[in-house]
Amino acid sequence: MTKHADPNLGALVRARRAGRSLPAALYTGAEAFEADCATFFERQWTLVAVEADVPSADGTFVVDFARASVVLARGDDGALRGFHNVCRHRGARLRDAGKATGRRITCPYHHWTYGLDGALIRAPHMGTDFDASCHGLRPVHLRTVGGLVFVSLADGPPADFADLEAAMGPRLAPYGLARAKIAHESVIVEEGNWKLTMENNRECYHCAGSHPELGKTFLPQDFGYDPDELSPAKRAVADGHLALFARKTRAWEEAGWPSAPIEHLVGHDTNFRTERLMMGEGGVARSATMDGKPACRVPLGDVGDADVGDLHFWTHHSWHHLMADHAVVTMAHPISPERTRVRTVWLVNAKAREGVDYDRENLVRVWTATNSQDAALVARAQAGVRTPGYSPGPYSRFTERHLDDFATWYVDRLLAAGH
Amino acid sequence: MTKHADPNLGALVRARRAGRSLPAALYTGAEAFEADCATFFERQWTLVAVEADVPSADGTFVVDFARASVVLARGDDGALRGFHNVCRHRGARLRDAGKATGRRITCPYHHWTYGLDGALIRAPHMGTDFDASCHGLRPVHLRTVGGLVFVSLADGPPADFADLEAAMGPRLAPYGLARAKIAHESVIVEEGNWKLTMENNRECYHCAGSHPELGKTFLPQDFGYDPDELSPAKRAVADGHLALFARKTRAWEEAGWPSAPIEHLVGHDTNFRTERLMMGEGGVARSATMDGKPACRVPLGDVGDADVGDLHFWTHHSWHHLMADHAVVTMAHPISPERTRVRTVWLVNAKAREGVDYDRENLVRVWTATNSQDAALVARAQAGVRTPGYSPGPYSRFTERHLDDFATWYVDRLLAAGH
Amino acid sequence: MTKHADPNLGALVRARRAGRSLPAALYTGAEAFEADCATFFERQWTLVAVEADVPSADGTFVVDFARASVVLARGDDGALRGFHNVCRHRGARLRDAGKATGRRITCPYHHWTYGLDGALIRAPHMGTDFDASCHGLRPVHLRTVGGLVFVSLADGPPADFADLEAAMGPRLAPYGLARAKIAHESVIVEEGNWKLTMENNRECYHCAGSHPELGKTFLPQDFGYDPDELSPAKRAVADGHLALFARKTRAWEEAGWPSAPIEHLVGHDTNFRTERLMMGEGGVARSATMDGKPACRVPLGDVGDADVGDLHFWTHHSWHHLMADHAVVTMAHPISPERTRVRTVWLVNAKAREGVDYDRENLVRVWTATNSQDAALVARAQAGVRTPGYSPGPYSRFTERHLDDFATWYVDRLLAAGH
Repeated sequence: MTKHADPNLGALVRARRAGRSLPAALYTGAEAFEADCATFFERQWTLVAVEADVPSADGTFVVDFARASVVLARGDDGALRGFHNVCRHRGARLRDAGKATGRRITCPYHHWTYGLDGALIRAPHMGTDFDASCHGLRPVHLRTVGGLVFVSLADGPPADFADLEAAMGPRLAPYGLARAKIAHESVIVEEGNWKLTMENNRECYHCAGSHPELGKTFLPQDFGYDPDELSPAKRAVADGHLALFARKTRAWEEAGWPSAPIEHLVGHDTNFRTERLMMGEGGVARSATMDGKPACRVPLGDVGDADVGDLHFWTHHSWHHLMADHAVVTMAHPISPERTRVRTVWLVNAKAREGVDYDRENLVRVWTATNSQDAALVARAQAGVRTPGYSPGPYSRFTERHLDDFATWYVDRLLAAGH
Repeated sequence: MTKHADPNLGALVRARRAGRSLPAALYTGAEAFEADCATFFERQWTLVAVEADVPSADGTFVVDFARASVVLARGDDGALRGFHNVCRHRGARLRDAGKATGRRITCPYHHWTYGLDGALIRAPHMGTDFDASCHGLRPVHLRTVGGLVFVSLADGPPADFADLEAAMGPRLAPYGLARAKIAHESVIVEEGNWKLTMENNRECYHCAGSHPELGKTFLPQDFGYDPDELSPAKRAVADGHLALFARKTRAWEEAGWPSAPIEHLVGHDTNFRTERLMMGEGGVARSATMDGKPACRVPLGDVGDADVGDLHFWTHHSWHHLMADHAVVTMAHPISPERTRVRTVWLVNAKAREGVDYDRENLVRVWTATNSQDAALVARAQAGVRTPGYSPGPYSRFTERHLDDFATWYVDRLLAAGH
Repeated sequence: MTKHADPNLGALVRARRAGRSLPAALYTGAEAFEADCATFFERQWTLVAVEADVPSADGTFVVDFARASVVLARGDDGALRGFHNVCRHRGARLRDAGKATGRRITCPYHHWTYGLDGALIRAPHMGTDFDASCHGLRPVHLRTVGGLVFVSLADGPPADFADLEAAMGPRLAPYGLARAKIAHESVIVEEGNWKLTMENNRECYHCAGSHPELGKTFLPQDFGYDPDELSPAKRAVADGHLALFARKTRAWEEAGWPSAPIEHLVGHDTNFRTERLMMGEGGVARSATMDGKPACRVPLGDVGDADVGDLHFWTHHSWHHLMADHAVVTMAHPISPERTRVRTVWLVNAKAREGVDYDRENLVRVWTATNSQDAALVARAQAGVRTPGYSPGPYSRFTERHLDDFATWYVDRLLAAGH
């Protein structure tokens, strides 16, 4: 939607120094926000839903993100499609956010009626020469990967999304997310720029001091540390962990569970990273719960009783944890320069019964607490960045390498967009 | 107040295609909003009140609209005048919105005191050489037409307002609105650009699906339809209605009730349209009530027991319905790019007694419901226009001709203003 | 923080005419607000606290003003210092506004830890080559004058603040504000631009009509009047007052209480004015209370039972009244173009006991009422300035000379800043 590159924004982007956080106005300014929406949420592939959000055969799911609103629907042919949630007549919003049923989409304004494949079926008073075929709902590009629904509003979406599909398709397949059910979901609004939400998520430097619940099963060693700071005793423990982790990774790979890190970051159009990690000290935990035990008795998909740790997966605006018993999918969508909507979905096997096979409270406790703690930290980061006292600060090369990569990738993408 | 034309706005204005709704940023942008305020509400003649709003001899009525605030007062000479609601000293707002009494306007800040003719009467401590005559309240142009009060803040207001006066003066005169009383008023804030409020009002394409109360006495046939869509039976009914309507119009004209449409739209500076319509199937209804019967037993002005249908009158930001027993006057004033204040006044004969000659609930039911329904539709239109999925859509040439004319007129006026 | 001068703002500044209030956009616009923050609150010396706000030895006081946030702390060496309230790591806000205790400042995000002298003490995982000495808290310039704490965020703060120190140091010294205690404080948000807050404070033209409580001890004659407007009888009274005031000023000066006006306004970088005034008719009042009697039985500092009137002191964004028994310090900090935070602190001798030596209600009544009345007037001024009906109006040369000076100084400073 930005018609031309903003020279001030270009100068700002070029002012970013490697190894440091971004210039303030990229976190706070209206120009940066518009460019971010256009580049990272309209052109880039954006996670907008899980397949379980979309009713199977006769309904729609509407999601609002950044400046956009998209309606997802499954046509008579079973194919999932996405459309701008806007009537082709005078642009009225067709449906409100969330689920709705019915095999037709009728605009409440003048009752123009569309099929679930987007075709305009009825538009009264438009004349016998009116070509309905030119006035179907405007489609958006849509791809599903292992039950995750991505859309792009661009004419030409990033082609290297194929790399993400190739890497993540096989990793996600055994979890059967496309057939899973949503056991719980939460939406919170963070008082910060979406990039601070993502920076916060991409490091565990802050975990020890902020996330007691997550700390039950997360191992800070997995997220980087400065070995020279450790005492010999702690160094030995850390080395032992790394050795165990290396053995475990090999074992996973040999058992057919792809696990080694894949980093598709700087230098690429589409941004993602994945890695399988152990859970809990010694890798004895099985789920992100307070006691490390599975929250759900029915395993996801075809996982069965395999010990599969926690499969991490990040895009530039989402993060995912796939465990044997449940998956947690979180997507961050900007609302304004200083506000971000964070939606989290907890998925379990569709056969699992609440209260019998899983206790919802137990299932969601860790990430509900973690999201809330992170929201407070993001607000604090935004509050500081917004003052004249802020200047870009140094990332730790041990614990914040992914943030540096993210900032570099972000700047590269804006430059590539002509800013 | 805009000091120079905005080149971006000019490009936007020129991008509008005939037959289609406006480019999105004209409904959402800050630049368009400022230009709209300057062009359509400060320069153009704006309906700000009915004469009944202004106390007869010793008081004021303040109205806030767009970026402005105006105080209306009747001087000792009986003449109605308008002034900027701002002290000539340091610019304090003189009075809050609504009615106040008293033959002086005293600024609450330093007690500069003005007469109801705007003259500065007292300004202490300004020195013996201070010329009070140069510091009277800044007047605005004011005209009343049949009891409706219009102002222009421009040095040179549109001269062709004389056409409106010539056309509407005689049509409005018999209703005696200048002597009527306000039986009820409502103010709602619509979550949409003022032009979407007006587009919504200028078509009845949406009536069938949205306005059950209004549909009791409005006849959709009067607002356009595609004859080729009708079955032979319905076509015959529609043709019968048109024939009846033509006869009725002739009869009204012969009886001294000017009724034929007058369109003063594209190509003119001042925008208005008027037409007298029948009410209810077969023209049997007499008032916009649920049963079509008069809401008030005392007729307006000199109408008496004449069957005068519903005299419609639209300006670029207001709409009016004059019926034998009451009149409904509605004015739309922009608050911000995406919010519009809509004030509706129900007028009855000053002699009519509430609870005796009219039941207020019955009087206001139809348009209260209709306004509320329209507010929801306007919000829905704005919500869609604001997303990247919107692109200007086609107006129906049968049911939305007036919207096309309005959009063309709007663009022409901005071009004429130098954008 | 503004990177380049705004040509539109420059034109606006140059449009200001002597003797008149400022062009509207200087009171309402976003560009003017940014320039004001940079010039008048980040570069200029800004009053942010009184010494009593800062805990004596092991704590901090955080104050948010304009776009900034500053943490004040007293180091082990007893020196008071100010720092940007932002972590040098990724810019998180360190502490929330107000007082906190402790000899360390630990960022809640990643636990970087600073001493009260700003030195970075701990920053884990940053590598053995990390130079902590380059990552201490960013200091701001700080000066205390008679117990008042001023900061400047500029590289080169106005050098002529030394004139303020030289003038006010001796005048403030006897009151011992650095050792006083805060008996009460209030924070209100005025719905107006900070310059309207200051214009309101710099004249007493509005006092008679608006401030009954303040009028008990303020003498309008001291704030200017047009002598030609007075009747011979009133003129005689006024002349008598001026003669008494001249005698009193001489007596004060001879007794070692500097009292004559000092005006450091147009032509200077730093803006201040001071003057000692009598209180109450005939100078018989001793304190700004409803009955003119002292509100506190224990005098401030070394004042003892001297009759010292009311020592007035103004900067460009603050005003102060020092009386024998208590002092009132008020600072105005912009929040946004149309909102200003006004904090008032009532100071008494640290030995005075609430409920015994002073009644808090009695102590704060006059200025609490006055602030509230002024807030309403400022909102009214802003409401008028924001409309197209406003044009810069004439200041009274008798009662509003200080406003004219303030506006001239304001414009000169923006021009000097390159606008």
